[in-house]
Amino acid sequence: MLDELKRSVLDANLALKRSGLVLYTWGNVSGIDRESGLIVIKPSGVDYDALTVDSMVVVDRGGNVVEGSYRPSSDTPTHLVLYEAFPEIGGVAHTHSTYATMWAQAGCAIPCFGTTHADHFYGDIPCTRHLTAEEVSGAYEYETGRVIMEAMAQLDENAVPAVLVRGHGPFTWGDSPMSAVVNSVVLEEVAKIAHGTATLNPAAAPIPGYLLDRHFFRKHGKGAYYGQR
Amino acid sequence: MLDELKRSVLDANLALKRSGLVLYTWGNVSGIDRESGLIVIKPSGVDYDALTVDSMVVVDRGGNVVEGSYRPSSDTPTHLVLYEAFPEIGGVAHTHSTYATMWAQAGCAIPCFGTTHADHFYGDIPCTRHLTAEEVSGAYEYETGRVIMEAMAQLDENAVPAVLVRGHGPFTWGDSPMSAVVNSVVLEEVAKIAHGTATLNPAAAPIPGYLLDRHFFRKHGKGAYYGQR
Amino acid sequence: MLDELKRSVLDANLALKRSGLVLYTWGNVSGIDRESGLIVIKPSGVDYDALTVDSMVVVDRGGNVVEGSYRPSSDTPTHLVLYEAFPEIGGVAHTHSTYATMWAQAGCAIPCFGTTHADHFYGDIPCTRHLTAEEVSGAYEYETGRVIMEAMAQLDENAVPAVLVRGHGPFTWGDSPMSAVVNSVVLEEVAKIAHGTATLNPAAAPIPGYLLDRHFFRKHGKGAYYGQR
Amino acid sequence: MLDELKRSVLDANLALKRSGLVLYTWGNVSGIDRESGLIVIKPSGVDYDALTVDSMVVVDRGGNVVEGSYRPSSDTPTHLVLYEAFPEIGGVAHTHSTYATMWAQAGCAIPCFGTTHADHFYGDIPCTRHLTAEEVSGAYEYETGRVIMEAMAQLDENAVPAVLVRGHGPFTWGDSPMSAVVNSVVLEEVAKIAHGTATLNPAAAPIPGYLLDRHFFRKHGKGAYYGQR
Repeated sequence: MLDELKRSVLDANLALKRSGLVLYTWGNVSGIDRESGLIVIKPSGVDYDALTVDSMVVVDRGGNVVEGSYRPSSDTPTHLVLYEAFPEIGGVAHTHSTYATMWAQAGCAIPCFGTTHADHFYGDIPCTRHLTAEEVSGAYEYETGRVIMEAMAQLDENAVPAVLVRGHGPFTWGDSPMSAVVNSVVLEEVAKIAHGTATLNPAAAPIPGYLLDRHFFRKHGKGAYYGQR
Repeated sequence: MLDELKRSVLDANLALKRSGLVLYTWGNVSGIDRESGLIVIKPSGVDYDALTVDSMVVVDRGGNVVEGSYRPSSDTPTHLVLYEAFPEIGGVAHTHSTYATMWAQAGCAIPCFGTTHADHFYGDIPCTRHLTAEEVSGAYEYETGRVIMEAMAQLDENAVPAVLVRGHGPFTWGDSPMSAVVNSVVLEEVAKIAHGTATLNPAAAPIPGYLLDRHFFRKHGKGAYYGQR
Repeated sequence: MLDELKRSVLDANLALKRSGLVLYTWGNVSGIDRESGLIVIKPSGVDYDALTVDSMVVVDRGGNVVEGSYRPSSDTPTHLVLYEAFPEIGGVAHTHSTYATMWAQAGCAIPCFGTTHADHFYGDIPCTRHLTAEEVSGAYEYETGRVIMEAMAQLDENAVPAVLVRGHGPFTWGDSPMSAVVNSVVLEEVAKIAHGTATLNPAAAPIPGYLLDRHFFRKHGKGAYYGQR
Repeated sequence: MLDELKRSVLDANLALKRSGLVLYTWGNVSGIDRESGLIVIKPSGVDYDALTVDSMVVVDRGGNVVEGSYRPSSDTPTHLVLYEAFPEIGGVAHTHSTYATMWAQAGCAIPCFGTTHADHFYGDIPCTRHLTAEEVSGAYEYETGRVIMEAMAQLDENAVPAVLVRGHGPFTWGDSPMSAVVNSVVLEEVAKIAHGTATLNPAAAPIPGYLLDRHFFRKHGKGAYYGQR
């Protein structure tokens, strides 16, 4: 069942590990089959080296395991909220990557300081508020998804496919599991350059809006002219 | 004698080297056989590449060599204090890993800035006071263990399996030699992210207690739901 | 056509990738045949792993594709301005390398803080102004070349073969495609050391002019005595 | 002639390259034959990959090439001053390693912030003054050796086998070419930890003198008890 999707979720998880963004069993990537609404996700706490197509877990919209002998990632409810709210995405990735997590811990959005950022993300990477004690003591991972929705409320998720959960770390998404991973990798590099920019010049300002527009739309949308078409 | 423990202490020392946390012969890992009270530890100043099961040194609670042709790590008396005081631990690791050592040299506890930290350590990583001239001129390595005890006095060592010795570096422990090494690796990553958090936002605050609780107990204790059980 | 130049542009692009300065398809290197005025450049958005001699694109001074089945790098018009203005250069490289980009995003020239810098670049690495909205909305990549010319107006391009485009990243050049890449690699290291210098000592000053002269001319020009001659 | 020394100088240069402390042809290591007073040193500007025993250059105390088809490192006169002034050393290494060079460019000695430092260097790593215009315009590399002597005047070179040349980078030495390289590697790590200490806590203080004494003499001199003896 969903063999192709399981393979692409496995490949994306292995790519995440190879990218150097995760230690041990940290991080997870999922993918969705929009027709059936089923989600395939990494099992919780299993070594990346031991992952196979068959260790991927299939869950339904409610988070119930439909197939697989492992328990799904403990972050599954967060992924489910993202798939529900963002109808065009096909994959979600979560890491505690070093530099993106520094920004999340500092409680700051990553300003769009340059074109490296603007090539991939249309504006600042938002940072959520802290969850309340009530939210944390309840359905914590589901509520994490909810505060992400709050932070993304005024944004186009297809243009800003990344968010920082305050005191936690980044979630990214894309049209496939692998593109969610690519966004995690780019976000980490953007976060690293932004960290160095801010420590070098605390008064550094975001790039002008017209430059953001030019770079983002050079790579995205119908006026794009980067790459081969 | 204690062949299995020697093998696990060797493996843990080699894992420490592979992790990139040590230069040259720096660092050491030990393990304890709780039945006999004997400790197995890396020999002092021997290249990691040259280590074999037979080069591991067996010492008793008093630090006397019971077996082995090498001298034990010069930090052995510190390990002994930890095993004496923390009855449930099975392994101890010591490094001068780059970022954890920055915090030790800065004389600062590592604040629990995020869930990466909270997933593994239940609160700040304490930093000891400086040893006095008397302590340093006496049984220095034993006294190092004693100031660690002071810093850990109000803490549960099984929930905070790491400490910074001021002006020196980290000690970590766990239920086995390898888990002590894993705690050293996680501590180093936590220290790196915390360093970047503090340089980015000097006013950054620890996460709320309820979030610390949720993350720590998501992975530890009888209510844990991370991983496969 | 231009087989030797295509080979050297390919080699330089692959060297750039190996150097660790680029993620994914970021960055590009070109070379010029001064006799014909034709430029060979990396195709836009193609994986480095997939590049062959035949995927290199040949364009004329006006940016028209003369040979090749791919579209040229979107930064081609910037390269063209550099070749036009700097008659002795044979290659141009562009990256978003981490530390050089921090300086570009901070909007600061890289001060000549030491002899590592002075050995390769005769003085500060200039940073351009931001392009105006008009410049960005027009022939953006051509105008990027124009603001580089502004920033280099008082400088000898053969002595300072690098520039930072504000909010964007570095361009470097040299007498060949490979030497442009070497200048990118050296610039990145110089930028990293300068970043650490400035965060360690915000009052750090450039080295005296006489020391800059000595180091630069130890390696360049007819009085040079570094290396084998 | 001096085949064994040439081999050890070659090996030390290759170890320096493998350590990641040098880019391209930067850096150099030499060794001395105290009986004859002859020095063996890396040739100037030759790729590390191309070095063989036969490419090592033999020079006398005056810097005259006695054997070898290459020109010696341009820093040879600095090495000669060190060998002349420090009668017990057998090797000298010079790099522009990233973190040590940050301190040199910041014009600051590296404070002895911790025991990692104290295990290898007996106190702060001094930083020279800037050379004057006269010194730079004259026998520059010889004068570099002279300002090193000034900075080391009150220090025991065998206890502090490293110095920072202001605005330039580190020189280290030891009883052999390889031990000079080891000191460069340790210095770089010490410099990196110190940089992070100073940016984390600008008020960080050196460790107490009694702790410095204990650690240094734990590894050095007749009371040493680290390692196997």
